[in-house]
Amino acid sequence: MKVRVLVTLKNGVLDPQGRAIHHALEGLGFSGVNDVRAGRVIELDVADTTSDEQLDDMCRKLLANMVIENYRIEKAG
Amino acid sequence: MKVRVLVTLKNGVLDPQGRAIHHALEGLGFSGVNDVRAGRVIELDVADTTSDEQLDDMCRKLLANMVIENYRIEKAG
Repeated sequence: MKVRVLVTLKNGVLDPQGRAIHHALEGLGFSGVNDVRAGRVIELDVADTTSDEQLDDMCRKLLANMVIENYRIEKAG
Repeated sequence: MKVRVLVTLKNGVLDPQGRAIHHALEGLGFSGVNDVRAGRVIELDVADTTSDEQLDDMCRKLLANMVIENYRIEKAG
């Protein structure tokens, strides 16, 4: 089973990487960019028997820092 | 317009971060994990008039390293 975990910074947490990308896009002449937030994506290939609780557990224990980050789990098929 | 850009390493490109996560998950007792690939996600808030070509251009020029990475653009509404 393919699972995608998206880890993004919580609202209000400063995102210097996103700001740098935003600035660079403007420098390259791309206008109309209002906001940029950078995060991580982790693509997992797990056994079909893996439960939602186990996936949640993986995110909480390792993949995301729950103090400053949110995660979203998306299953693909 | 909210746009999500997913940047992942091409197949065949070594992914030490993914391997480290895989190893750590096994160390934490999660079995049944077959593969882990790590990547980046960039969430853009762009003007509604931004064309697909412009988004492609942003990815090719800045967001992804086309030599070793693939990108996928996903629009949300």
